[in-house]
Amino acid sequence: MEKILRINMSNMEVNKEDLPEKYLEFGGRGLTSRIVLDEVKPNCNPLSKYNKLVMAVGLLAGTTLSSSDRLSVGAKSPLTGRIKEANSGGTAGSKLAKLNYRALIIEGKPAKDTCYIIKINKDNVEIEEREDLKMLGNYELVARLNEEHTGKGKPGVISVGQAGEMKLAAAGVSVSDITGEPNNVAARGGMGAVMGSKGVKAIIIDDTGAERVKLADEEVFKKAAKKFNKALIDNPGKQNQAKYGTASITAVVSGMGAIPTNNFSRGDFDEINEIDGDKLYELITGRGGEGKTTMSCMPGCVIRCRNIYPDQDGKEMASCIQYETIGLLGSNCGLDSLDEIGELTYLCNDYGLDTIEMGATLAMLSDIGMFKLGDFAKAKELLEEVGKCSTLGRVLGQGAETTARVLGIDRVPSVKGQAMPSYDPRGLKGNGVTYATSAMGADHTAGNAFGARKTVDPLTPENQIELSRSLQIKVASVVDNTGLCLFARPPVINDFEFLVKIINAKFGWDLKPEDIDRIGKEIVKTEREFNKRAGYNNYDDRLPYYLYDEKLPPHNTVFDVPDSEIDKVHDY
Amino acid sequence: MEKILRINMSNMEVNKEDLPEKYLEFGGRGLTSRIVLDEVKPNCNPLSKYNKLVMAVGLLAGTTLSSSDRLSVGAKSPLTGRIKEANSGGTAGSKLAKLNYRALIIEGKPAKDTCYIIKINKDNVEIEEREDLKMLGNYELVARLNEEHTGKGKPGVISVGQAGEMKLAAAGVSVSDITGEPNNVAARGGMGAVMGSKGVKAIIIDDTGAERVKLADEEVFKKAAKKFNKALIDNPGKQNQAKYGTASITAVVSGMGAIPTNNFSRGDFDEINEIDGDKLYELITGRGGEGKTTMSCMPGCVIRCRNIYPDQDGKEMASCIQYETIGLLGSNCGLDSLDEIGELTYLCNDYGLDTIEMGATLAMLSDIGMFKLGDFAKAKELLEEVGKCSTLGRVLGQGAETTARVLGIDRVPSVKGQAMPSYDPRGLKGNGVTYATSAMGADHTAGNAFGARKTVDPLTPENQIELSRSLQIKVASVVDNTGLCLFARPPVINDFEFLVKIINAKFGWDLKPEDIDRIGKEIVKTEREFNKRAGYNNYDDRLPYYLYDEKLPPHNTVFDVPDSEIDKVHDY
Repeated sequence: MEKILRINMSNMEVNKEDLPEKYLEFGGRGLTSRIVLDEVKPNCNPLSKYNKLVMAVGLLAGTTLSSSDRLSVGAKSPLTGRIKEANSGGTAGSKLAKLNYRALIIEGKPAKDTCYIIKINKDNVEIEEREDLKMLGNYELVARLNEEHTGKGKPGVISVGQAGEMKLAAAGVSVSDITGEPNNVAARGGMGAVMGSKGVKAIIIDDTGAERVKLADEEVFKKAAKKFNKALIDNPGKQNQAKYGTASITAVVSGMGAIPTNNFSRGDFDEINEIDGDKLYELITGRGGEGKTTMSCMPGCVIRCRNIYPDQDGKEMASCIQYETIGLLGSNCGLDSLDEIGELTYLCNDYGLDTIEMGATLAMLSDIGMFKLGDFAKAKELLEEVGKCSTLGRVLGQGAETTARVLGIDRVPSVKGQAMPSYDPRGLKGNGVTYATSAMGADHTAGNAFGARKTVDPLTPENQIELSRSLQIKVASVVDNTGLCLFARPPVINDFEFLVKIINAKFGWDLKPEDIDRIGKEIVKTEREFNKRAGYNNYDDRLPYYLYDEKLPPHNTVFDVPDSEIDKVHDY
Repeated sequence: MEKILRINMSNMEVNKEDLPEKYLEFGGRGLTSRIVLDEVKPNCNPLSKYNKLVMAVGLLAGTTLSSSDRLSVGAKSPLTGRIKEANSGGTAGSKLAKLNYRALIIEGKPAKDTCYIIKINKDNVEIEEREDLKMLGNYELVARLNEEHTGKGKPGVISVGQAGEMKLAAAGVSVSDITGEPNNVAARGGMGAVMGSKGVKAIIIDDTGAERVKLADEEVFKKAAKKFNKALIDNPGKQNQAKYGTASITAVVSGMGAIPTNNFSRGDFDEINEIDGDKLYELITGRGGEGKTTMSCMPGCVIRCRNIYPDQDGKEMASCIQYETIGLLGSNCGLDSLDEIGELTYLCNDYGLDTIEMGATLAMLSDIGMFKLGDFAKAKELLEEVGKCSTLGRVLGQGAETTARVLGIDRVPSVKGQAMPSYDPRGLKGNGVTYATSAMGADHTAGNAFGARKTVDPLTPENQIELSRSLQIKVASVVDNTGLCLFARPPVINDFEFLVKIINAKFGWDLKPEDIDRIGKEIVKTEREFNKRAGYNNYDDRLPYYLYDEKLPPHNTVFDVPDSEIDKVHDY
């Protein structure tokens, strides 16, 4: 029987509970969202003892199936005031699964203002007070924890940098990868602030001596996994993914006129060739040294989309440089250099900040003259304020909406309190529908219409509703509930028969293909139910007004999917 | 025909429009809320051009009826993200009414970052660019404008201090009184920030040469007004109101165990006798000099509840010191000296800040060691940060909820984003119900159960729903729609026959007593409809969780009116 590990930071109690039957079908985001709905007071202050930080692995975590170990982190969000889930690659998911934990719930709040680490291994769960780790950045923190580690190999470390400790709403939860560095981030929605509010600086997962994850029908599973992994390797997009990572789409999105540029005022970036996938690959391979492409973040991943970006001397500068970061910290800030983007990425990763939220926030400061688009030195200086724990740093680290409030800016590129990722809704209208109607606010991973750009015209309001609805349900069930990476969706996203075969082989169940759709709908409805109980109705499903008014070059389009249509997205 | 004056700050156009028939029955808050619902995009950014600042006088403004000239200010609130109305005494309401304006709508947003003043007189409406007035405090600003004034007597000035210019969500709109000083504030909900966002520093109203307000049946009206005014003079509470002002209730609320004390952790204050009405009266009269009690803020008011608080040398320190200010800046901050409260009040009035919001905010900082309860010097220093326009000042000036977010505080005494006024919901449960269910958030003026403390036990959950519902409807119609002051409610609050007689005599209408109830319900429903369209449902009608958990000494009560009951308040 899989377990839920419950850790109460008020009284330092640790409990292992059997996974309740009602949660059996749910993993990853499906499970965090169910637990958040069932256990968190919906209108609580997200930083109070009434909130809970829930981590969960997907149904397929810890197996030989490639790219299935993503770790979901959920809570009521201090950024959005609504339900939130963010997930991340890295090794923690696989290790938790091997230790037989489906989920980890951190609740309560310590009386003492200090730092704690939680050590989880095969035999024990320990909470240790560690004042000495206070206000360390993720990199130094995890290096120290690796050094202290006595188990086999590198532990899986889940951590927060200064931003999480300061409870900043743009703080993510970092997860170490197979290199042992905290290069993966469950970045969005301030999950790091919730972790910080619980006094937890790091969770160290050591699976030394753990048994393999149980498989009900080992043979069927192995065969299916092999087929799945091969399909990923043979996938025509695979080579681009390995070479360029998510950055492979940079030039394409700019070409479509949908990449955030100069504070969401254009959809294409003149210097796109300086920051796109080709340039990234060229610089990494050209500079050599510690720079690398084609790396895995999770053990056994065959996609290997990760990179280490080196500086001009070949020394590691940042890992990983991703598309969303390029769009928000790059073109949206008017920055046309990967070296600059790399430096800002490193800072965000070290402090534990969401690069999307920070890019949107910095660019927005150009509206009041606090930042000039393209001014790298100033961008860095502003970001460093967070590391300095200055009041300004605290403001910026709260993300776009709070920064706008404090500094008096009224053009705010966020939906439900969360900054828009790297697809302007006027240039990719399906994503506008997703941003508006996802319980998470502006979240591309909740249903990204980019992949459907050839079948549904991104610039017309037609068919966006149906597209976003279908994507939102599918991604919840096929990807986020199973623990799969978005890049690993091709073999199963339209073959539910195959997906249930894999799941059934693991658990000995008898799921039918239609159950995948049912589970997806249940997850989305669970999240909407939480938001309803937190005080929100369907009118909350709206984009900022300026997107309806201000024409976005080069296509000079506005967002024009009618509200009446938007309200139908979740009618099912 | 009464007019609406519409001023567009985008193109500097001024229009006078006939008051539309659908608005005839609505004045004050009734009218601002109707116009906000009809004209403001409900999910707009409150500081953007999509918001409008609406000012309106009540149905009975400008007449010889005592205390009927309150000026309502409404908009979508940058503090709450919901609809808001705040109102104020002073002379502007009467002057606007005499100039035949029922309402004033300021819309759009100027392209230029400068200051404008709007001059309204019998013949003209002028918009003047006045860069030289930038970042002046209210007192210097209004003194200068008085000096420049060429009309008869003192003009009615509606203004914002530095806080409004900085678009801080705790910024109020100040209104000058009959002494010509900006001592009245429509303080709550950040209406000053909306005015600031429109670039409007001040509105100067000169009613020189204006005709008297038209009365359909002059004789009946005059007789009724005389009876009304006499009833106010004969009202048994009148003497206390004149001597002590609103501070008359200070010791009573502490005796009930409901005055916010030490960051909402107690309901009684040990040093209450140092800051109550008696002490205030004693100091004002004992010190003499410029100190005064028993003053009017509006022309012709017979209640005269205003005071000027003098310093030890008899020099004017602050005006007016009110109960809510004493509770929030005094006992709630652990400050037991009226001199200290007076200094802080002056700063708030000069910057144009809501004393309730600021008192709640300062006291809350004690949770993170940034402020020690009772430390006046620190309170003053923190408040002065707003005047310095420092980043910290900007944060604090956003009020309790944003300050809590930025600084990582999770025990926030606010409802729907607005800080609780000077009645702890655990000690006066009817006010808890009002805070939860008013569209305005924590607002005592929306339905204050204090007056009913002898008929409905403030400490039990019973009958609070019915009480709050009845108060909310009555106050909307009898008080806020007519422009009456809350202190002027006795003659009409339970005598709708008399009230409609007065209204009918003014307009030549045939309102029936039951129409008063209907109008009140329409106003409350209008406001709830706006909030619905802004994305909120009934689950939004909740208090912060700690009020349900933390027992409030001395009665050790928690807030225990069930949610299911709360949800029935607006079932009618």
